[in-house]
Amino acid sequence: MQFQTTPFFDITQLRADTPGCLDSLFMNSAGASLMPQPVVAAMMDYLQLETQLGGYEVERLRLEQIGRFYDEAARLLNTRPGNIAYAYSATDAYFQVLSAIPFQVGDTILTTSNDYVSNQLAFLSMQQRLGIRLLRINDLPNGDLDLTHAEELMRIHRPALVAITHIPTNSGLVLPAEEVGSLCRQYGAWYLLDAAQSVGQLPLDVTHIQPDFLVATGRKFLRGPRNTGFLYVSDRALETGLAPLFLDRRAATWTSPDSYFLQMSARRFEPQEISLLSVGLAEAIHYANQIGIEAITQQNQGLMHRLRTGLEQLDGIVLLDRGSQQSNILTFHTTRQSLPALEAALRHRRVVFTVQYASSALIDFRRKGVDWLIRLSPHYFNTLAEMDEVVDLITHFL
Amino acid sequence: MQFQTTPFFDITQLRADTPGCLDSLFMNSAGASLMPQPVVAAMMDYLQLETQLGGYEVERLRLEQIGRFYDEAARLLNTRPGNIAYAYSATDAYFQVLSAIPFQVGDTILTTSNDYVSNQLAFLSMQQRLGIRLLRINDLPNGDLDLTHAEELMRIHRPALVAITHIPTNSGLVLPAEEVGSLCRQYGAWYLLDAAQSVGQLPLDVTHIQPDFLVATGRKFLRGPRNTGFLYVSDRALETGLAPLFLDRRAATWTSPDSYFLQMSARRFEPQEISLLSVGLAEAIHYANQIGIEAITQQNQGLMHRLRTGLEQLDGIVLLDRGSQQSNILTFHTTRQSLPALEAALRHRRVVFTVQYASSALIDFRRKGVDWLIRLSPHYFNTLAEMDEVVDLITHFL
Repeated sequence: MQFQTTPFFDITQLRADTPGCLDSLFMNSAGASLMPQPVVAAMMDYLQLETQLGGYEVERLRLEQIGRFYDEAARLLNTRPGNIAYAYSATDAYFQVLSAIPFQVGDTILTTSNDYVSNQLAFLSMQQRLGIRLLRINDLPNGDLDLTHAEELMRIHRPALVAITHIPTNSGLVLPAEEVGSLCRQYGAWYLLDAAQSVGQLPLDVTHIQPDFLVATGRKFLRGPRNTGFLYVSDRALETGLAPLFLDRRAATWTSPDSYFLQMSARRFEPQEISLLSVGLAEAIHYANQIGIEAITQQNQGLMHRLRTGLEQLDGIVLLDRGSQQSNILTFHTTRQSLPALEAALRHRRVVFTVQYASSALIDFRRKGVDWLIRLSPHYFNTLAEMDEVVDLITHFL
Repeated sequence: MQFQTTPFFDITQLRADTPGCLDSLFMNSAGASLMPQPVVAAMMDYLQLETQLGGYEVERLRLEQIGRFYDEAARLLNTRPGNIAYAYSATDAYFQVLSAIPFQVGDTILTTSNDYVSNQLAFLSMQQRLGIRLLRINDLPNGDLDLTHAEELMRIHRPALVAITHIPTNSGLVLPAEEVGSLCRQYGAWYLLDAAQSVGQLPLDVTHIQPDFLVATGRKFLRGPRNTGFLYVSDRALETGLAPLFLDRRAATWTSPDSYFLQMSARRFEPQEISLLSVGLAEAIHYANQIGIEAITQQNQGLMHRLRTGLEQLDGIVLLDRGSQQSNILTFHTTRQSLPALEAALRHRRVVFTVQYASSALIDFRRKGVDWLIRLSPHYFNTLAEMDEVVDLITHFL
């Protein structure tokens, strides 16, 4: 199997756009990635203009630039701009969706053991406050989602909502988003896909996955600014009239003291307030679209193959990622060194990574029998040489 | 009556910090004000560092700078940092509060005819979805809130929540926040004050007003970045255990598959995700605290006196602001010129202002019998000469 860069992919230019990648072994794109220069430049420019003219004047002058976000996000997900809403984060978008579904006491939310912590906390709060029932689909022994169990739970419990995290924050696993989508259509459940870790590293085609709602973040593999995200809303959800419980003024027009008119498009899920971050997000999605997600995925497969095979061979390292399809997240644990010593050694050599603790993915950590892990998440601007360098560093330190 | 600057107040320095005020007659601080240089510099610096190191690394390195926000906001409102939560906007904070109150079918929300449009849309949606009853306190003939009517409604209907906008976005009126607070305590209602237009222009002392919740925005009279806001939560609300319906991971710690531990402080109302905007907001509040709200208010009274008396004398201008206490918002209508002609003329002379339409404050517009108005909102960095210049411009154009 060949792992070569594609002709669409100019690594020299991409690294030149990413000054931070020269200073460090940057492997934290699953946390907050390095923004490319065009993203930073768009925000700097917008901020300078706001300093001169004020925020409302700039919004008025830059409506077209701001509006580009919808086109770029629609292109990325293979949908129409009217199905896209801006959000302040993936979690912000997620909670807008949860507020839109008219849950009744006793309704079931079906999720997994690998779902994102904020989503789980929201479900638990809804369990207490609204009398929602929360069920979790089992995993197979290899770590994959047990689709037979998923179908069984759907058939018996007819969940109002099925909520899946496409790639868990604490694990390289990729969940079968399309297969779950197909079950949701069969059993008439709303389907909410948290694509915070997959957007920007894997192709996300909503005509294949067929979610009712998909949430994405800007700051991770899309390389956009922090505090940005977006939401895809299906025509089905829009036509059913689903809308957030708390409507902002962009979502609806006040038409009489006691009535309003809801936006037709997905913008009914949007907050009113925007900022320079919106422009940064639009630029980041444009940047990814220009490179092409297929080229990005191909490059990433090469990097991850090198990193995984390098670390797999080391005694004393336990790779924690399971499942038949893995992603740009590699997680490991070791008992050979203490966490503080390992952390300090890696930071000293300018490796940028994340340490995760059990409270960020309680069920998965318990199952794996660890209370911390180190997460390495390279991205296409990294090089094979950097993968080797990190493997060497860890080898010498153990 | 003297309208002089105070010794705490160096207008030359303040204008030098505000390059945009030299390019225009900037009178839109009620929309989005001009950020002072220290605010812009803090964000630029943070963004540059993120470009080099990545967002998570910078957050780790700058925890102290980020944490300053709580101290500055607490100082501004005369409370403790533990009663402050960061938010993405005043509306975002507002909706977190609405989600926290455990409304039952038939519960009453008591509001006014001058309340902010997004709040009203949320109430109407809650009326439809949750069976909330919405009541509005009458105004007196002079435009002031009718406190006798307020008390009568509270006595009869025992509202779960009283929700007041301190200064309406479409009117110079200042509502009697303290008096409403005292009624709320008397009748045991939760009290939510929307201070988006008053924060940064008037002293806001929560020990006097005694709200249970107060929401504020960064971008208006505080001169912070867009897409920022914050929330004050009273000890009473915290001790009662109120928390947002959808808990983000900063709000709670996941402790077992089916339980979590709620943050003790107001941070249980916070989202997890921050950005350079957080740093800009902290700097903006610091800037206002340094000048001192009393000095700001005093300077503003002088400016508004000059502007109001100048425009009052013009034939063909109808000033729309009512009530016994007015603020830094001046609104007017005219039938002498069409809106497009007036707008173009003012913009041509580099006046920065806002046009508002009926849907932004439906009840108030109907009562005033207009379908648009022009809003001028100077702030302390403006000068008396600028007030005269705007009056002259409008005089010549009518």
